[in-house]
Amino acid sequence: MAHESIKVALLGAGTVGSQTARLLVEQADEFERRIGARLELTGIAVLDPDQVNDPWIDKSLLTTDTLELTTRADVVVELIGGIEPARTFVLSALNHGASVVTANKALLAQHGPELYEAAERNGVDIYFEAAVGGAIPIVRPLRESMVGDKINRIMGIVNGTTNYILDEMTTRGLAFDTVLKEAQAKGFAEADPTADIGGFDAAAKAAIMSVLAFHRDVRMDDVHVEGIENITESDIEAARAMNRVIKLLAVVSENEQGISAGVYPIMLPADHQLAKVSGSFNAVFVEGEASDDLMFYGRGAGGAPTASAVTGDIVTVARHRVAGSTGPSIPLYSNAPIVDASQAHSSYMVRFNVPDNVGVLARITEIFAQHGVSIRAAQQHEQEDAQGNHELWITTHSVSDHVIRETIDDVAAEKTAGAVISIMRVFEE
Amino acid sequence: MAHESIKVALLGAGTVGSQTARLLVEQADEFERRIGARLELTGIAVLDPDQVNDPWIDKSLLTTDTLELTTRADVVVELIGGIEPARTFVLSALNHGASVVTANKALLAQHGPELYEAAERNGVDIYFEAAVGGAIPIVRPLRESMVGDKINRIMGIVNGTTNYILDEMTTRGLAFDTVLKEAQAKGFAEADPTADIGGFDAAAKAAIMSVLAFHRDVRMDDVHVEGIENITESDIEAARAMNRVIKLLAVVSENEQGISAGVYPIMLPADHQLAKVSGSFNAVFVEGEASDDLMFYGRGAGGAPTASAVTGDIVTVARHRVAGSTGPSIPLYSNAPIVDASQAHSSYMVRFNVPDNVGVLARITEIFAQHGVSIRAAQQHEQEDAQGNHELWITTHSVSDHVIRETIDDVAAEKTAGAVISIMRVFEE
Repeated sequence: MAHESIKVALLGAGTVGSQTARLLVEQADEFERRIGARLELTGIAVLDPDQVNDPWIDKSLLTTDTLELTTRADVVVELIGGIEPARTFVLSALNHGASVVTANKALLAQHGPELYEAAERNGVDIYFEAAVGGAIPIVRPLRESMVGDKINRIMGIVNGTTNYILDEMTTRGLAFDTVLKEAQAKGFAEADPTADIGGFDAAAKAAIMSVLAFHRDVRMDDVHVEGIENITESDIEAARAMNRVIKLLAVVSENEQGISAGVYPIMLPADHQLAKVSGSFNAVFVEGEASDDLMFYGRGAGGAPTASAVTGDIVTVARHRVAGSTGPSIPLYSNAPIVDASQAHSSYMVRFNVPDNVGVLARITEIFAQHGVSIRAAQQHEQEDAQGNHELWITTHSVSDHVIRETIDDVAAEKTAGAVISIMRVFEE
Repeated sequence: MAHESIKVALLGAGTVGSQTARLLVEQADEFERRIGARLELTGIAVLDPDQVNDPWIDKSLLTTDTLELTTRADVVVELIGGIEPARTFVLSALNHGASVVTANKALLAQHGPELYEAAERNGVDIYFEAAVGGAIPIVRPLRESMVGDKINRIMGIVNGTTNYILDEMTTRGLAFDTVLKEAQAKGFAEADPTADIGGFDAAAKAAIMSVLAFHRDVRMDDVHVEGIENITESDIEAARAMNRVIKLLAVVSENEQGISAGVYPIMLPADHQLAKVSGSFNAVFVEGEASDDLMFYGRGAGGAPTASAVTGDIVTVARHRVAGSTGPSIPLYSNAPIVDASQAHSSYMVRFNVPDNVGVLARITEIFAQHGVSIRAAQQHEQEDAQGNHELWITTHSVSDHVIRETIDDVAAEKTAGAVISIMRVFEE
């Protein structure tokens, strides 16, 4: 049975937009068979049509009137990025009855719940597989496959730039600044790398995953964020000495206290599945009540991989339109509290620089004990620095963030005890 | 808006059925919020009601009239297994307008296309996430997320029993028979282990994945199957010497020649993502044209993990019923030829036992050359056996299955040249 065509509007023709247009043109016949209707590229909104030179893009489709384009399509594909004007365009599309496909993690992390609600109110779809983990199907498994399970925790390597930098520091023994400059030269890091290395890109993805996993309105501002900019070669070396590697993880979890969402560097055991994810790959590790451990792994960025996720969404929402239906909505019925980051628990490794005095270890462990911090291991290193000081590594059992910081402040206040070199979370099962 | 309840019928109350019933009871309120209607367990068909003792199962729901139960539910969950009578029950459910959720890989591998067609004809869903990879969401990503991409190849560790046996042989240096007996004693292998160790369970999953990936009617009989029963400790040792590990893979691929589907042991590089999948875990590696490499990892079996996939499907098809819609059908529009296994290409490692004569290597390589088989490496080992023979390992470039076998037959026919110890596929990128 022939169905009239499905009109697709692309907003943006950057790397992902261009690759999406290519897939829509090259795979048009295949998609028609999969959908039962032909996808008709009805317009591509760009800032400057003269800068679009892809041979597969029909120039007559280009327009600069983005808002108008959102009013005359069945499926609007938002690949502009950023909050405004993307938010206005997406809302216009939804309110005009179009389904929306977007890769815009920043927008969803700040305004996702309103947009999901607007889609439901208008009886249309909003799909965003590419917003988390690039080509990796993670949004749909969370939204649909795992809907029969209770998700306890998600830990993801969801930022390729930081994973690449940490990987290079680990395998080549280089300093953060050196690797960052190299990554910028190769195009793996932005000229302004703050969003990546500060952990903000990963935090946006953490917020989006929290909503899907816990059915709770969680926004970017609810996510505790620490980046990798202060990680030194000696941190990497210390991790290696403990048969661990440092990864920047987005971690979201729910327990009796509530929902925690954070992004931070953490020492993983070297044989953990996430520790083996190298270079610019992404991986998301999901711990379900019934399903147990799951992992999703693949390319987290790049034009073609991201475009494959976008076109998968386009085909899905087009199928829904042919069937006169929509996919599942994103119900937000949970009122679980958001746990303040200072209350979140973790094991920590603290490295001190201590003088070679009898009694220093005893004094430091006494301060830990006074704060109720249980020590898993204390290790004093032979090697002296020029001042005759040694490194002392203390690994704790699980303790809340504010308690470990108060403990360390107390140690630092006693000048005789020693100076804090660094403090780093340690992953324990 | 309240919606009337969705009637769910369970066929079978074995390990997975029992856990599914538990999740439906324990998570009833949560599921109601996710679906917008309450799931009402309307009946559980079993052979002998007296043998059901799970405290969460209301005994008044038990029935032995399975066929009748299929006629009075909105969602029929088939967890009986095997071809008949499961096929009759599933068809009855579909023809009576119920959506079906099944974990029955054997049934789908032999009759999937008819059942998918029957579901579409009746305007209902058939979902089967648990049939491949247990708890791992792989069916839905193939069916929906990757629908905008072209899949080139899927390689999966989809049978936990064989992966456990190979893993134990590798890490503990034990013989196949020893490990199999241990696995049977621990309940990791069936009393009759043929379906697992012969590769047939994996072959069923290969057939199901081929249909989803290539939109072509592929059945169990189209899958070339080799098991692990002939793998010896010396094969494992040889792999280790080459920094490889032997895994039983289900491999389905499509190229210009057509579609290939096979299950066989293969030597993977030790640093390949699939090589790191240990014990009873499963993993599926997907190579998409645009998405590049993706991997899905998790528990491939077990009551609760499998039940999580089943209940995820139940919630999804229930949502569709509330919305008055269905998920995507499984269109089979491809007529690509199925490549005969004898024509399939691979690299191989052949181990010979050769006499210590000058000229033996020359003669063997000459026979390889006569068949047009290109040699990547030849390696003669110092160590002699009691007869003064040495092992000679020859690794080939890509060659068709029938050519390598003819070549080896020719070598074996020359008694002076040497005896073939084993032949094993070698994974090359």
